[in-house]
Amino acid sequence: MSGESVSFNPAQLPWNQDGLLPVIAQQHTTGEVLMLAWMNAEALAETLQTGRVCYWSRSRQRLWRKGESSGQTQYLRALYLDCDRDAVLLQVDQIGPACHTGRRSCFYRQVTDDRVQVITEPVIAPEQLYAGSTDVRTTH
Amino acid sequence: MSGESVSFNPAQLPWNQDGLLPVIAQQHTTGEVLMLAWMNAEALAETLQTGRVCYWSRSRQRLWRKGESSGQTQYLRALYLDCDRDAVLLQVDQIGPACHTGRRSCFYRQVTDDRVQVITEPVIAPEQLYAGSTDVRTTH
Repeated sequence: MSGESVSFNPAQLPWNQDGLLPVIAQQHTTGEVLMLAWMNAEALAETLQTGRVCYWSRSRQRLWRKGESSGQTQYLRALYLDCDRDAVLLQVDQIGPACHTGRRSCFYRQVTDDRVQVITEPVIAPEQLYAGSTDVRTTH
Repeated sequence: MSGESVSFNPAQLPWNQDGLLPVIAQQHTTGEVLMLAWMNAEALAETLQTGRVCYWSRSRQRLWRKGESSGQTQYLRALYLDCDRDAVLLQVDQIGPACHTGRRSCFYRQVTDDRVQVITEPVIAPEQLYAGSTDVRTTH
Protein backbone atom coordinates (compact mmCIF):
# COMPACT_ATOMS: atom_id res chain seq x y z
CA MET A 1 0.00 0.00 0.00
CA SER A 2 2.57 2.54 -1.14
CA GLY A 3 4.17 3.91 -4.28
CA GLU A 4 7.55 5.29 -5.28
CA SER A 5 8.36 8.60 -3.67
CA VAL A 6 8.92 11.52 -6.03
CA SER A 7 10.43 14.92 -5.34
CA PHE A 8 8.07 17.50 -3.84
CA ASN A 9 8.05 21.11 -4.98
CA PRO A 10 5.59 23.37 -3.07
CA ALA A 11 5.79 25.92 -5.91
CA GLN A 12 3.98 23.42 -8.16
CA LEU A 13 0.86 23.16 -5.96
CA PRO A 14 -2.32 24.87 -7.27
CA TRP A 15 -2.22 27.79 -4.80
CA ASN A 16 -5.35 29.95 -4.93
CA GLN A 17 -5.42 33.57 -6.17
CA ASP A 18 -4.09 34.67 -2.77
CA GLY A 19 -1.27 32.11 -2.89
CA LEU A 20 -2.92 29.98 -0.17
CA LEU A 21 -4.33 26.49 0.39
CA PRO A 22 -6.69 25.34 3.17
CA VAL A 23 -5.06 23.20 5.87
CA ILE A 24 -6.81 20.84 8.29
CA ALA A 25 -5.12 20.14 11.63
CA GLN A 26 -6.04 16.84 13.30
CA GLN A 27 -4.76 15.62 16.69
CA HIS A 28 -2.77 12.49 15.76
CA THR A 29 -3.61 10.57 18.94
CA THR A 30 -7.40 11.05 18.95
CA GLY A 31 -8.39 11.95 15.38
CA GLU A 32 -10.09 15.11 16.67
CA VAL A 33 -10.23 17.83 14.01
CA LEU A 34 -8.80 20.87 15.77
CA MET A 35 -8.96 23.69 13.21
CA LEU A 36 -8.87 24.77 9.60
CA ALA A 37 -6.32 27.42 8.66
CA TRP A 38 -4.30 28.48 5.60
CA MET A 39 -0.73 28.13 4.38
CA ASN A 40 1.27 29.77 1.64
CA ALA A 41 4.33 28.09 0.10
CA GLU A 42 6.65 29.65 2.66
CA ALA A 43 4.54 28.46 5.63
CA LEU A 44 4.36 24.94 4.19
CA ALA A 45 8.13 24.80 3.60
CA GLU A 46 8.86 26.11 7.12
CA THR A 47 6.46 23.59 8.68
CA LEU A 48 8.13 20.68 6.87
CA GLN A 49 11.59 22.00 7.75
CA THR A 50 11.06 22.79 11.43
CA GLY A 51 8.34 20.29 12.43
CA ARG A 52 6.52 23.16 14.13
CA VAL A 53 3.32 24.18 12.34
CA CYS A 54 3.40 27.60 10.65
CA TYR A 55 0.30 29.03 8.94
CA TRP A 56 -0.42 32.21 6.99
CA SER A 57 -2.66 34.51 9.01
CA ARG A 58 -5.18 36.10 6.64
CA SER A 59 -6.17 38.64 9.30
CA ARG A 60 -2.60 39.68 10.12
CA GLN A 61 -1.24 39.09 6.58
CA ARG A 62 1.90 37.46 7.91
CA LEU A 63 3.34 34.05 8.82
CA TRP A 64 1.72 32.74 12.01
CA ARG A 65 3.75 30.23 13.98
CA LYS A 66 0.96 28.47 15.86
CA GLY A 67 1.43 29.14 19.57
CA GLU A 68 3.78 32.11 19.11
CA SER A 69 1.51 34.30 21.26
CA SER A 70 -0.48 31.68 23.21
CA GLY A 71 2.21 29.06 23.80
CA GLN A 72 -0.20 26.46 22.37
CA THR A 73 2.26 25.06 19.83
CA GLN A 74 1.40 22.48 17.17
CA TYR A 75 4.07 19.91 16.39
CA LEU A 76 3.86 18.16 13.02
CA ARG A 77 3.54 14.38 12.99
CA ALA A 78 2.51 13.85 9.34
CA LEU A 79 1.50 15.96 6.33
CA TYR A 80 -0.76 14.83 3.49
CA LEU A 81 -2.02 16.32 0.21
CA ASP A 82 -5.38 15.42 -1.28
CA CYS A 83 -6.13 14.00 -4.74
CA ASP A 84 -6.24 17.46 -6.33
CA ARG A 85 -3.23 18.68 -4.29
CA ASP A 86 -5.29 21.73 -3.30
CA ALA A 87 -5.92 20.80 0.34
CA VAL A 88 -3.52 19.79 3.14
CA LEU A 89 -4.11 17.52 6.12
CA LEU A 90 -1.78 17.78 9.09
CA GLN A 91 -1.61 15.22 11.84
CA VAL A 92 -0.26 17.17 14.79
CA ASP A 93 0.50 17.03 18.46
CA GLN A 94 -1.40 20.06 19.80
CA ILE A 95 -0.20 21.48 23.10
CA GLY A 96 -3.30 22.63 25.01
CA PRO A 97 -6.23 24.24 23.19
CA ALA A 98 -6.02 24.85 19.44
CA CYS A 99 -8.71 27.56 19.49
CA HIS A 100 -8.09 31.21 20.39
CA THR A 101 -11.25 30.98 22.56
CA GLY A 102 -9.40 28.52 24.82
CA ARG A 103 -11.29 25.50 23.49
CA ARG A 104 -9.47 22.35 22.41
CA SER A 105 -11.06 22.50 18.93
CA CYS A 106 -12.29 25.47 16.90
CA PHE A 107 -15.34 23.44 15.82
CA TYR A 108 -17.41 24.04 18.96
CA ARG A 109 -20.65 25.24 17.36
CA GLN A 110 -23.05 22.47 16.32
CA VAL A 111 -25.76 23.24 13.78
CA THR A 112 -28.95 21.18 13.92
CA ASP A 113 -31.78 22.05 11.56
CA ASP A 114 -32.20 25.82 12.00
CA ARG A 115 -30.42 26.13 15.37
CA VAL A 116 -26.78 26.55 16.39
CA GLN A 117 -25.44 25.69 19.84
CA VAL A 118 -22.06 26.00 21.55
CA ILE A 119 -21.25 22.43 22.65
CA THR A 120 -17.89 22.81 24.41
CA GLU A 121 -16.50 25.26 26.94
CA PRO A 122 -12.98 26.73 27.11
CA VAL A 123 -10.38 24.63 28.92
CA ILE A 124 -8.35 27.81 29.45
CA ALA A 125 -9.78 31.35 29.69
CA PRO A 126 -8.69 33.36 26.61
CA GLU A 127 -7.35 36.18 28.81
CA GLN A 128 -5.13 33.56 30.50
CA LEU A 129 -4.17 32.07 27.12
CA TYR A 130 -2.95 35.43 25.85
CA ALA A 131 -1.71 36.83 29.16
CA GLY A 132 1.24 39.09 28.47
CA SER A 133 0.56 39.12 24.74
CA THR A 134 -0.58 42.17 22.81
CA ASP A 135 -1.34 40.03 19.80
CA VAL A 136 -5.08 39.55 19.49
CA ARG A 137 -5.93 37.20 16.65
CA THR A 138 -9.24 37.58 14.89
CA THR A 139 -9.75 35.29 11.92
CA HIS A 140 -7.55 32.44 10.69
CA MET B 1 -20.78 21.68 28.42
CA SER B 2 -23.32 23.42 26.24
CA GLY B 3 -24.97 26.79 25.73
CA GLU B 4 -28.37 28.03 24.67
CA SER B 5 -29.22 27.28 21.07
CA VAL B 6 -29.88 30.27 18.83
CA SER B 7 -31.44 30.41 15.39
CA PHE B 8 -29.11 29.65 12.47
CA ASN B 9 -29.16 31.64 9.25
CA PRO B 10 -26.73 30.39 6.58
CA ALA B 11 -27.00 33.76 4.81
CA GLN B 12 -25.19 35.35 7.76
CA LEU B 13 -22.03 33.22 7.40
CA PRO B 14 -18.90 34.97 6.04
CA TRP B 15 -19.00 33.30 2.60
CA ASN B 16 -15.92 34.01 0.48
CA GLN B 17 -15.92 36.10 -2.71
CA ASP B 18 -17.23 33.06 -4.60
CA GLY B 19 -20.00 32.48 -2.05
CA LEU B 20 -18.28 29.36 -0.69
CA LEU B 21 -16.81 27.99 2.55
CA PRO B 22 -14.38 25.05 2.95
CA VAL B 23 -15.94 21.89 4.37
CA ILE B 24 -14.12 18.98 6.04
CA ALA B 25 -15.74 15.55 5.92
CA GLN B 26 -14.74 13.12 8.70
CA GLN B 27 -15.96 9.52 9.07
CA HIS B 28 -17.89 9.63 12.35
CA THR B 29 -16.97 6.09 13.44
CA THR B 30 -13.20 6.25 12.90
CA GLY B 31 -12.27 9.94 12.89
CA GLU B 32 -10.63 9.51 9.49
CA VAL B 33 -10.56 12.77 7.51
CA LEU B 34 -12.02 11.77 4.13
CA MET B 35 -11.94 14.96 2.03
CA LEU B 36 -12.11 18.72 1.89
CA ALA B 37 -14.72 20.24 -0.41
CA TRP B 38 -16.80 23.42 -0.65
CA MET B 39 -20.38 24.45 0.03
CA ASN B 40 -22.45 27.48 -0.88
CA ALA B 41 -25.49 28.51 1.19
CA GLU B 42 -27.81 26.35 -0.93
CA ALA B 43 -25.63 23.23 -0.53
CA LEU B 44 -25.41 23.77 3.24
CA ALA B 45 -29.17 24.24 3.56
CA GLU B 46 -29.89 21.14 1.43
CA THR B 47 -27.42 19.04 3.45
CA LEU B 48 -29.07 20.05 6.74
CA GLN B 49 -32.54 19.47 5.30
CA THR B 50 -31.96 16.08 3.62
CA GLY B 51 -29.19 14.55 5.77
CA ARG B 52 -27.39 13.65 2.54
CA VAL B 53 -24.24 15.70 1.95
CA CYS B 54 -24.40 18.18 -0.94
CA TYR B 55 -21.36 20.25 -1.95
CA TRP B 56 -20.72 22.93 -4.55
CA SER B 57 -18.48 21.56 -7.31
CA ARG B 58 -16.03 24.30 -8.31
CA SER B 59 -15.04 22.37 -11.45
CA ARG B 60 -18.61 21.76 -12.59
CA GLN B 61 -20.02 25.01 -11.14
CA ARG B 62 -23.13 23.27 -9.85
CA LEU B 63 -24.48 21.53 -6.75
CA TRP B 64 -22.80 18.16 -6.27
CA ARG B 65 -24.76 15.59 -4.31
CA LYS B 66 -21.92 13.38 -3.10
CA GLY B 67 -22.34 9.95 -4.66
CA GLU B 68 -24.76 11.08 -7.39
CA SER B 69 -22.51 9.57 -10.08
CA SER B 70 -20.43 7.08 -8.05
CA GLY B 71 -23.06 5.81 -5.61
CA GLN B 72 -20.63 6.62 -2.77
CA THR B 73 -23.10 8.68 -0.77
CA GLN B 74 -22.24 10.64 2.37
CA TYR B 75 -24.86 10.72 5.11
CA LEU B 76 -24.67 13.55 7.62
CA ARG B 77 -24.27 12.65 11.28
CA ALA B 78 -23.29 16.08 12.68
CA LEU B 79 -22.36 19.53 11.36
CA TYR B 80 -20.13 22.04 13.13
CA LEU B 81 -18.95 25.62 12.48
CA ASP B 82 -15.59 26.91 13.67
CA CYS B 83 -14.86 29.90 15.89
CA ASP B 84 -14.86 32.30 12.94
CA ARG B 85 -17.85 30.57 11.28
CA ASP B 86 -15.82 30.40 8.06
CA ALA B 87 -15.11 26.66 8.05
CA VAL B 88 -17.46 23.68 8.38
CA LEU B 89 -16.78 20.22 9.84
CA LEU B 90 -19.08 17.36 8.88
CA GLN B 91 -19.17 14.07 10.70
CA VAL B 92 -20.50 11.66 8.11
CA ASP B 93 -21.20 8.05 7.34
CA GLN B 94 -19.34 7.54 4.05
CA ILE B 95 -20.53 4.67 1.88
CA GLY B 96 -17.41 3.16 0.25
CA PRO B 97 -14.56 5.36 -0.91
CA ALA B 98 -14.83 9.15 -0.58
CA CYS B 99 -12.19 9.82 -3.25
CA HIS B 100 -12.87 9.84 -6.99
CA THR B 101 -9.68 7.74 -7.37
CA GLY B 102 -11.44 4.91 -5.51
CA ARG B 103 -9.52 5.48 -2.28
CA ARG B 104 -11.28 5.73 1.06
CA SER B 105 -9.74 9.18 1.76
CA CYS B 106 -8.59 11.89 -0.66
CA PHE B 107 -5.52 12.49 1.55
CA TYR B 108 -3.42 9.63 0.17
CA ARG B 109 -0.23 11.56 -0.65
CA GLN B 110 2.21 11.90 2.24
CA VAL B 111 4.86 14.60 2.10
CA THR B 112 8.09 14.01 4.00
CA ASP B 113 10.88 16.58 3.69
CA ASP B 114 11.23 17.08 -0.06
CA ARG B 115 9.50 13.86 -1.17
CA VAL B 116 5.87 12.92 -1.77
CA GLN B 117 4.58 9.34 -1.78
CA VAL B 118 1.21 7.68 -2.44
CA ILE B 119 0.48 5.74 0.75
CA THR B 120 -2.86 4.06 0.00
CA GLU B 121 -4.26 2.18 -2.97
CA PRO B 122 -7.80 2.32 -4.39
CA VAL B 123 -10.33 0.01 -2.75
CA ILE B 124 -12.42 0.23 -5.94
CA ALA B 125 -11.06 0.89 -9.46
CA PRO B 126 -12.22 4.35 -10.62
CA GLU B 127 -13.58 2.89 -13.87
CA GLN B 128 -15.74 0.58 -11.73
CA LEU B 129 -16.71 3.46 -9.43
CA TYR B 130 -18.01 5.50 -12.36
CA ALA B 131 -19.24 2.61 -14.51
CA GLY B 132 -22.21 3.79 -16.50
CA SER B 133 -21.58 7.42 -15.61
CA THR B 134 -20.49 10.05 -18.11
CA ASP B 135 -19.72 12.43 -15.27
CA VAL B 136 -15.96 12.67 -14.78
CA ARG B 137 -15.14 14.88 -11.83
CA THR B 138 -11.87 16.77 -11.82
CA THR B 139 -11.38 19.10 -8.89
CA HIS B 140 -13.59 19.55 -5.81
